[in-house]
Amino acid sequence: MKKLLLFLLLSPLSMIAQSNIDSIYIKNISNEILRNGKAHDLLRILTKEIGGRLAGSPQFSKAVEWGASALKNAGANKVFLQECMMPNWQRGGKDNAIIIQINKNKTSRALDVLALGNSMGSGGKPVIAEVIGVADFADLEAKKELVKGKIVYFNYKFNPTNIHPFTSYGEVGQYRRNGPSAAAKYGAVGVMIRSLTEATDNNPHTGATAYDEAFPKIPAVALGGYDADYIWELCNKTAITVSITTNGHFLPDAKGHNVVAELTGTTYPNEYIAIGGHLDSWDVNEGAHDDGAGIVQTIEVLRTLKALGYQPKHSLRFVLFANEENGLKGGLKYAEEAKAKNENHIFALESDEGGFTPRGFGFTMSENQLAKVKAWLHLLQPYGTETLNMGGGGADIGPLKTAFGTALGGLIPDAQRYFDIHHARSDVFENVNKRELLLGAVNMAALIYLIDQYGL
Amino acid sequence: MKKLLLFLLLSPLSMIAQSNIDSIYIKNISNEILRNGKAHDLLRILTKEIGGRLAGSPQFSKAVEWGASALKNAGANKVFLQECMMPNWQRGGKDNAIIIQINKNKTSRALDVLALGNSMGSGGKPVIAEVIGVADFADLEAKKELVKGKIVYFNYKFNPTNIHPFTSYGEVGQYRRNGPSAAAKYGAVGVMIRSLTEATDNNPHTGATAYDEAFPKIPAVALGGYDADYIWELCNKTAITVSITTNGHFLPDAKGHNVVAELTGTTYPNEYIAIGGHLDSWDVNEGAHDDGAGIVQTIEVLRTLKALGYQPKHSLRFVLFANEENGLKGGLKYAEEAKAKNENHIFALESDEGGFTPRGFGFTMSENQLAKVKAWLHLLQPYGTETLNMGGGGADIGPLKTAFGTALGGLIPDAQRYFDIHHARSDVFENVNKRELLLGAVNMAALIYLIDQYGL
Repeated sequence: MKKLLLFLLLSPLSMIAQSNIDSIYIKNISNEILRNGKAHDLLRILTKEIGGRLAGSPQFSKAVEWGASALKNAGANKVFLQECMMPNWQRGGKDNAIIIQINKNKTSRALDVLALGNSMGSGGKPVIAEVIGVADFADLEAKKELVKGKIVYFNYKFNPTNIHPFTSYGEVGQYRRNGPSAAAKYGAVGVMIRSLTEATDNNPHTGATAYDEAFPKIPAVALGGYDADYIWELCNKTAITVSITTNGHFLPDAKGHNVVAELTGTTYPNEYIAIGGHLDSWDVNEGAHDDGAGIVQTIEVLRTLKALGYQPKHSLRFVLFANEENGLKGGLKYAEEAKAKNENHIFALESDEGGFTPRGFGFTMSENQLAKVKAWLHLLQPYGTETLNMGGGGADIGPLKTAFGTALGGLIPDAQRYFDIHHARSDVFENVNKRELLLGAVNMAALIYLIDQYGL
Repeated sequence: MKKLLLFLLLSPLSMIAQSNIDSIYIKNISNEILRNGKAHDLLRILTKEIGGRLAGSPQFSKAVEWGASALKNAGANKVFLQECMMPNWQRGGKDNAIIIQINKNKTSRALDVLALGNSMGSGGKPVIAEVIGVADFADLEAKKELVKGKIVYFNYKFNPTNIHPFTSYGEVGQYRRNGPSAAAKYGAVGVMIRSLTEATDNNPHTGATAYDEAFPKIPAVALGGYDADYIWELCNKTAITVSITTNGHFLPDAKGHNVVAELTGTTYPNEYIAIGGHLDSWDVNEGAHDDGAGIVQTIEVLRTLKALGYQPKHSLRFVLFANEENGLKGGLKYAEEAKAKNENHIFALESDEGGFTPRGFGFTMSENQLAKVKAWLHLLQPYGTETLNMGGGGADIGPLKTAFGTALGGLIPDAQRYFDIHHARSDVFENVNKRELLLGAVNMAALIYLIDQYGL
């Protein structure tokens, strides 16, 4: 037995023997994370002691300090901050929408709304107007003559028959981003949208909108599911008047930071592999899944590799990105700095689809690179990864591709619950499961290990 | 194009063309369930209007009535009840455990406990004794001389490094089932166990114990995670005395019923395929995942096949089984009746591992049958099924195998969260996600469709 072991260790390593070594190493990674993982405890602190941390908020600055400290504690060789200027959108107070007239009867039925991120407020007084409901952009076009002076309500829904909720999110996202200006183009004075969710509750979901500078920046709010159903039914059968008061505005850009930790490579110190998530979140929740999960998984991967005494071949960067939600200034800054210092990034991995049970990774890379990655599938399958396919990455690491042609990967968790809580008040610590969160980190660490060992 | 279609339809159906037809039919099943599924609404009624429904309770009888009505509404050709006698265990009141002495100091620290199902109460007065902590059965053996007159605490934990939580459950289950009698054998007067969970809360988890008739039936309770940690630490460093009061007892066996619906087969009416879950639950929660989910998925499969106008070749049975949790009398009764009437069951499917995102099915069948099922993998993969492997079934359908050699299958959902809520107060409707629940039904309906079409 000893002789066999010696033979296996000393002979030119066959691929099978190497695969066994990798399999054992990955099992060690998994055991370390599932036994001693700190991700869930770190997430409790980030969500409960710091909370929502929109770019420009005091909480964001607190999160930067916390992140630097957590990365140091996890064993980074060095931790540094990268300063960047971030948009500083302020919600400015409570968002209100009230139905004040149904048919010709006065009423006062409050709707549960959240102003869309980056949207402008109603100017210190309510916007009061009749509501015109539209099913989608085509319906808006058909009714464009009727829109002037009205509040447009977009009822576009998630398609429940898509098995993967991100497909549905991709379809409806345009209404949050472009709905306000599409309506303003025809003279609308305000916009309401159905929240981007299939949740069976009435929580409204915020998220960034993007005004077209050519049109007035009208107030825009999202409705929860029950209120959306109610408004749609009502405005299809009678005239209703709604009063919207929002307070969104921008302060001068705020100073923010990416938090970056490094494990310096032993063989290729000038070739980098980055792994990260975004540190900012919306203001209305704890940013637990979005993207506290990605942050604590990133720290967990670092902690685990250090705990196992892993000496990476490439330099590994663990990045807590600033300002993904409403500006992407952190991701842009990281790539810009890397480019300026000629820090060639061969691969970058992001976790920003929630801390749910992992089911695979999606990639933006060459077919040859993907073929190499797919050959590792059997090593990841025991931990829940079932697909390693083309298509994926992450917003924050996207600029690295532009800068270096970096190959990108994104963790794909089981996202059936994601849009129940995404950008809503319900994205809180209690809705993250410890084992699911840790298993994401297991798969991430295993993938990083394989890419570090064998390159792409 | 039309000619090609005609050719495909009229030519002796090639396997590929048939596979396309199946693929389209399964997509129709999926669309029907994800658009119009009633499972989530039915679960709300079962959990919120009926609630916990232990065998023998008035709620169980109410659930039988509700189930018969729900199956009729879903479109069954016929619905009938099968009477069976069920054990009638009563918790009998609030379970209490209090630390009353630490070292030599009096104290009064309440522990959050639940008596194990089928366990006997403390006889109208507390059992008061010193606690001896043991890590496992081997440790109990080592300390057997010290056990007499004591309360034994079993600290055996879930192994967090198992990727599949049912593996860990399988390992720890013996402490709940056999722990009380193992301790009584050496003269213990009471037992406490660490709950069978890794949950990050302090909820105790009940579940059936099984006394060995050779030894006294001593009171037995489960502790939540925090209290378990506390007791283990404490009893390893000092003497502690605990007072346990429980009230478990059996009333005479109660009349119960399986609820059975049928879609009669058009080609093989005398060959049966059964699909089911169990209608009973523990008394301390709403039985939402365990097994409300399996119940409403079963009804959903029936509703969907009827809504699509499906004419099954075999007779399909939709069974809401009685008394899985503490007796299995429903499953035994169903197989007994089927055997008496010579209703040959070629396949039975159970859903009793929670209403989470489906990831596959496990089977107990011949290798040849499994090979046939595996050939359908590509048809199920778009809906989340990734594995069709040997190993699986369900407690309620097990007796069919004994009776007919029936091939068995069990839905395998993603169970990472299951043992957080399993048999605990937290198994409530709010912890079931609508999309995850419906996707389980999609995969179940698709599998039943394929087996009905092609047999095994």
